[in-house]
Amino acid sequence: MTQPSDKALVPFVSVDHMMQLIHHIGIEPMLCGLADYIESDFKRWELFDKTPRVASHSAEGVIELMPTSDGEVYGFKYVNGHPKNTAEGLQTVTAFGLLADVASGYPVLLTEMTILTAMRTAATSAMVARHLAPKGADTMAMIGNGAQSEFQTLAMKAICGLKSVRLYDTDPAATAKCAANLANHGINVVSCASPEDAIEGAQILTTCTADKQYATILTDNMVGAGVHINAIGGDCPGKTELAPAILHRSDIFVEFPPQTRIEGEIQQLDPEHPVTELWKVISGTAKGRTSDRQITLFDSVGFAIEDFSALRYVRDQLPPTGLYHPLDLLADPDDPRDLFGMVHRAST
Amino acid sequence: MTQPSDKALVPFVSVDHMMQLIHHIGIEPMLCGLADYIESDFKRWELFDKTPRVASHSAEGVIELMPTSDGEVYGFKYVNGHPKNTAEGLQTVTAFGLLADVASGYPVLLTEMTILTAMRTAATSAMVARHLAPKGADTMAMIGNGAQSEFQTLAMKAICGLKSVRLYDTDPAATAKCAANLANHGINVVSCASPEDAIEGAQILTTCTADKQYATILTDNMVGAGVHINAIGGDCPGKTELAPAILHRSDIFVEFPPQTRIEGEIQQLDPEHPVTELWKVISGTAKGRTSDRQITLFDSVGFAIEDFSALRYVRDQLPPTGLYHPLDLLADPDDPRDLFGMVHRAST
Repeated sequence: MTQPSDKALVPFVSVDHMMQLIHHIGIEPMLCGLADYIESDFKRWELFDKTPRVASHSAEGVIELMPTSDGEVYGFKYVNGHPKNTAEGLQTVTAFGLLADVASGYPVLLTEMTILTAMRTAATSAMVARHLAPKGADTMAMIGNGAQSEFQTLAMKAICGLKSVRLYDTDPAATAKCAANLANHGINVVSCASPEDAIEGAQILTTCTADKQYATILTDNMVGAGVHINAIGGDCPGKTELAPAILHRSDIFVEFPPQTRIEGEIQQLDPEHPVTELWKVISGTAKGRTSDRQITLFDSVGFAIEDFSALRYVRDQLPPTGLYHPLDLLADPDDPRDLFGMVHRAST
Repeated sequence: MTQPSDKALVPFVSVDHMMQLIHHIGIEPMLCGLADYIESDFKRWELFDKTPRVASHSAEGVIELMPTSDGEVYGFKYVNGHPKNTAEGLQTVTAFGLLADVASGYPVLLTEMTILTAMRTAATSAMVARHLAPKGADTMAMIGNGAQSEFQTLAMKAICGLKSVRLYDTDPAATAKCAANLANHGINVVSCASPEDAIEGAQILTTCTADKQYATILTDNMVGAGVHINAIGGDCPGKTELAPAILHRSDIFVEFPPQTRIEGEIQQLDPEHPVTELWKVISGTAKGRTSDRQITLFDSVGFAIEDFSALRYVRDQLPPTGLYHPLDLLADPDDPRDLFGMVHRAST
């Protein structure tokens, strides 16, 4: 067998290498770095190729492909969402992603994205909160203490200066897990027995629950003036977390309206209900928070450009670390027209 | 570091392993096996989730995602098409693919598909020719002697009993390469100096050229009665190989009309021009060839279900061969809600 050339070998970041990369960079510096990459891509939002994700729904969940391109680099993520998986010891969400060179179509990076998606989702939430949360916000209610909760909390600490997090989950074991994981991270952690207790004194309310159904994690009377709501968990048709009355009292900010209208909290509203696109706030062409009393709501569903930013970040950080394997993914015959000859000679 | 569990490890078939698999099974038996899988999936066509491919076009080419699902298994292929790549020593088309379990969303196979796509395209062409070519067809004109040509020829031999192939390419070096590769494969190979010479006495006319432009590889007066045309190379908007007059004289068979209307030879015709869906011929609900004098045309563009069949075939053949690596692609914490804890413990 002949050795494949460099062009045929795609750097692959395994789960183990991704964990090593996070420790190599440091989790908070990496969250800040991801937020910077995401913010810079939101600023050049208009030049991206944007399509709603390509979803394949089944009774058990959904498998999605999320492609985008900035004209030079193409990226996509494979991601599933299967709420019942946890009962069988599997992840609700697993993901991997790929970057490719637009000029040649050749992939340049393949990476696990289960962990990276948690990192980019948290970095996006915190980057958005930096633009929308009331000045001096330093306390967050974290409702839903599952796989995303620690990442969300540390991103808010690193990027927005969060000092205190108030945890609540319908399952006290989830809260205990989250509190234990956040110990010794320089943040004050308060475990709460009710959602009402959790939101006490919080200027940022993050909801991140996983049921695939219409749920009401926050009721209207729980949400006072002058807060920022970071609604992470409602992200597919039929899955929401907020009472409609809260939406009517809020100024709503979204990633990509055609997708959020289908998947986000605003699926509960009239399709003409006004929303503001986040990229306009971040690039300075639309207003974000305009008063201390306003309720701002980030109706987060996750968009392909955020994954693209995360893939770019990993590609840029990776080379000096050596934290990847070269994967023999692409057939690369000496003569590109002689694919058959390459196969044939492999037998000898 | 703890070892990932079986659920986190996805079997990966590298280019080298794919070539070994082909030799392990034998190229002609593998082409026959692929044709059987593809034919069986065409017979249950109606139950598949079908969408036109998701394409990202640029000046240099296209990057596409081709997903489908039969309700139990989900598959997709990443594939690029960059005609100018060969000038830089790269493949025009590279591809990889993935199968996943619909019930959990977890991937179960990742594989190179540059070679596998050439194999499945050839198996599809031959399976279709078995249904549509005139009885006793044993001679093929192969116009375009690039990377697909040997695979097309051997599939027609293994599946349709082809005895003789007549090669033509605008570049004599391509023809010489193809003829050398096909020596000692039990088929009579004739190198021809013109397309008119190549089609002499051929009942099957295969066109497989790569220019991304409207081209006329076959002109009207070259095509007589009683032939089967296997048009492989026209497969994106603006790229065709046949004179429109030939289309008007032919009965046209296609994979998935909404895609072929955009990408195939029939993009040159009125959008209402009648075509027959191949799955109906294969499942016996539509007529294929009805007379010896008829011109049948397979306007091939390649469809996601053919890749799905090929992925299923590889998945089924793979386990006893050991021709794969387990890839650490999926994060798999002991407690699915404790992704952060897994990352955190990896530092110790």
